[in-house]
Amino acid sequence: CADCSRSRLSCVLMFSNGTRDYSPKQMAIRERVFTAIINCFKRHGAEVIDTPVFELKETLTGKYGEDSKLIYDLKDQGGELLSLRYDLTVPFARYLAMNKITNIKRYHIAKVYRRDNPAMTRGRYREFYQCDFDIAGQFDPMIPDAECLKIVHEILSDLQLGDFLIKVNDRRILDGMFAVCGVPDSKFRTICSSVDKLDKVPWEEVKNEMVGEKGLSPEAADRIGEYVQLHGGLDLIEQLLQDPKLSQNKLAKEGLGDMKLLFEYLTLFGITGKISFDLSLARGLDYYTGVIYEAVLLQQQNDHVEDPVSVGSVAGGGRYDGLVGMFDPKGRKVPCVGVSIGIERIFSILEQRVEASEEKIRTTETQVLVASAQKKLLEERLKLISELWDAGIKAEILYKKNPKLLNQLQYCEETGIPLVAIVGEQELKDGVVKLRDVATREEVNIRRENLIEEIRMRTSQL
Amino acid sequence: CADCSRSRLSCVLMFSNGTRDYSPKQMAIRERVFTAIINCFKRHGAEVIDTPVFELKETLTGKYGEDSKLIYDLKDQGGELLSLRYDLTVPFARYLAMNKITNIKRYHIAKVYRRDNPAMTRGRYREFYQCDFDIAGQFDPMIPDAECLKIVHEILSDLQLGDFLIKVNDRRILDGMFAVCGVPDSKFRTICSSVDKLDKVPWEEVKNEMVGEKGLSPEAADRIGEYVQLHGGLDLIEQLLQDPKLSQNKLAKEGLGDMKLLFEYLTLFGITGKISFDLSLARGLDYYTGVIYEAVLLQQQNDHVEDPVSVGSVAGGGRYDGLVGMFDPKGRKVPCVGVSIGIERIFSILEQRVEASEEKIRTTETQVLVASAQKKLLEERLKLISELWDAGIKAEILYKKNPKLLNQLQYCEETGIPLVAIVGEQELKDGVVKLRDVATREEVNIRRENLIEEIRMRTSQL
Repeated sequence: CADCSRSRLSCVLMFSNGTRDYSPKQMAIRERVFTAIINCFKRHGAEVIDTPVFELKETLTGKYGEDSKLIYDLKDQGGELLSLRYDLTVPFARYLAMNKITNIKRYHIAKVYRRDNPAMTRGRYREFYQCDFDIAGQFDPMIPDAECLKIVHEILSDLQLGDFLIKVNDRRILDGMFAVCGVPDSKFRTICSSVDKLDKVPWEEVKNEMVGEKGLSPEAADRIGEYVQLHGGLDLIEQLLQDPKLSQNKLAKEGLGDMKLLFEYLTLFGITGKISFDLSLARGLDYYTGVIYEAVLLQQQNDHVEDPVSVGSVAGGGRYDGLVGMFDPKGRKVPCVGVSIGIERIFSILEQRVEASEEKIRTTETQVLVASAQKKLLEERLKLISELWDAGIKAEILYKKNPKLLNQLQYCEETGIPLVAIVGEQELKDGVVKLRDVATREEVNIRRENLIEEIRMRTSQL
Repeated sequence: CADCSRSRLSCVLMFSNGTRDYSPKQMAIRERVFTAIINCFKRHGAEVIDTPVFELKETLTGKYGEDSKLIYDLKDQGGELLSLRYDLTVPFARYLAMNKITNIKRYHIAKVYRRDNPAMTRGRYREFYQCDFDIAGQFDPMIPDAECLKIVHEILSDLQLGDFLIKVNDRRILDGMFAVCGVPDSKFRTICSSVDKLDKVPWEEVKNEMVGEKGLSPEAADRIGEYVQLHGGLDLIEQLLQDPKLSQNKLAKEGLGDMKLLFEYLTLFGITGKISFDLSLARGLDYYTGVIYEAVLLQQQNDHVEDPVSVGSVAGGGRYDGLVGMFDPKGRKVPCVGVSIGIERIFSILEQRVEASEEKIRTTETQVLVASAQKKLLEERLKLISELWDAGIKAEILYKKNPKLLNQLQYCEETGIPLVAIVGEQELKDGVVKLRDVATREEVNIRRENLIEEIRMRTSQL
């Protein structure tokens, strides 16, 4: 498809309204990814919550800066003005304030909505999933922050998406850097937005925007330009802590001190090999107050992929200590740090990989098809399948009175059902069922009373 | 709470916009219910699909009769007019037509939206889950229909909600009955809506509506009144097949013939004890064309429940052979039959039961807390927990540099974590970790290299 990175086949499923259906095959891939992510979140002791798909419009107002124009509003049909949620972070903060929760570690996997132009944006939909993990509460510095990065590392490793890098920075370091470079306070956020574009456009363009559009002096821009090309590890942090200008700035010093602590914890976790302290990382959203991070896939290493696409960012997050307070009548703050996994891009990659590899994905878990070799055995098939269902066996029949045996076997081949339980007149007389292994075509008579055990045994080995 | 059937505690969570958040405890109960339902759907060989939360407005137009006023529209912000889905059946039919699928067995669990007045309707929300299972395709009569009823029976038995009854009828029998009672063709649907109220109001009121508001003759109403009090099993079907009037009506005869076949299949499934052929069952929606059914809980038998509430219908569905054709340019029909599980009511009952029983619901699955007995051991805790995470163990630490052992143990008690792995200076020297069983308070030193195996063994027994 010319408009998006998906294969032609998948793109047919994309509607004019910028959303898409998920077919059973896509759902099977999606569920694999969700399972890996949920397992990780649970491994880290997270609870799960859910919030409504729409919020009061005022809840979302003033939280997303320029992107607010992408919020879907509901029609005023009487009652409150409502909007579809734009992310899961703002509803989470609203939930904490509303229920006076000051301490929680939770995950939330749900759809969010953005009025982006889907055809203009590669692989982007107007409805898409976010998988968020957040830790709220007053804790000792950088311990929860380090855990969030460990989680990103675990999930991206587990999903085997190829090589990745997690860029880390801190809003306080950015603000301190802007201050020492001579950016006026009032321009911090807008210059930050320019810096945020560095992963997509070259420095010269960003500089032009800063100077031309945003009225920054060329000298200040050049000073920023020197800082934002820096990236490294503990060594860079030490170097900047000695930097004659930055080290004099209170915010930057605080941020660098915490960054050092973070890297010490990440060293204990053994994951610094994939972490880069990167002064060009800015993140778009307004609400971050401390550490920020973003994971990018470096390159598709898998030779089986037809069209290796640079998919960019697959996870991001950071610390937002002020957001909950915006929803509390008394402005009481609850410090939060979290991460959001970009499931749609991950899903895209895995879907392409499956399509390229000819791997056959099963979309059901059926263990056995209850079949008959002769006519007039529907009643016997229904009796047998009922016994199997009641015993917890996953079983199907064809919804025909007199299906041909060949059709029944073909159905198993197509859908990947491994076993066929065949009832016939002779078998009924003998009190047995003929159990056929679809792959090997071996058939063996099993006494009816042993059938359930035999099916369980055979399918537990799969 | 006076406005809804929920306990005061839960009702606090209900917003002014008629939706609610789910707390971790509610989510834990909800996931138990979902797991039981999904297991059943998978046992019957269903695939899973997903569709977007909003559809083109025109997709929903003309499908829900009077209830169309309850549809949420999105604001016109440019582009197509969109509405939030009202159920999962219409999007399913749209999906089949759009992708030219003529044969599928799928389930779909997702939220739907209705602009009901939540405060006026007990236990009802404007956003709620539906759990739908449907079989689409041209098959031999009543085999898929019988499977849908088997599924309802399995789920309601599995969830142990108390005694239940599944009422069954057929739109063709209703229409035939209306015809032989002298209802004009043009009044079939509106008289059907009146009959649908019989589970909530007495016959006299329904009759008044038919005669007074809808202009039916009192004689015709009285004839209907005689039929709709009938309910039974195969005997009643046989009796009506001999009924001098009904047996002359083509539609009724067809419906009764299929009902007989259905009961024969249900007898093979061994579930007729909970099925009642009930001529008063009508179901509100326009799109049903054949068999219809609805499951009701008869009474809360559980003595532990504080406020036993009659929760009424917990599942419903039927055959709709015309809906897919409404979305196909050439009107090609795909016969469908399905069932929707009323998860919110089931969830309400289980939530009340949990609250009344003082059962402690765990909201995390954490197997072990990594703790320290002395100060200055954060690094050691981080190293150990990292090893555990990497081995797939579900583990937590307190986010404090120097937490008190007592606080760490208390956290385990509160959250139900069964094990504590304690690192101390002596243990580090000896190459061991002290593993404490929270329930028994027994402590034993485990060699570090055996810790993971020991934790796995101990928590697999839980």
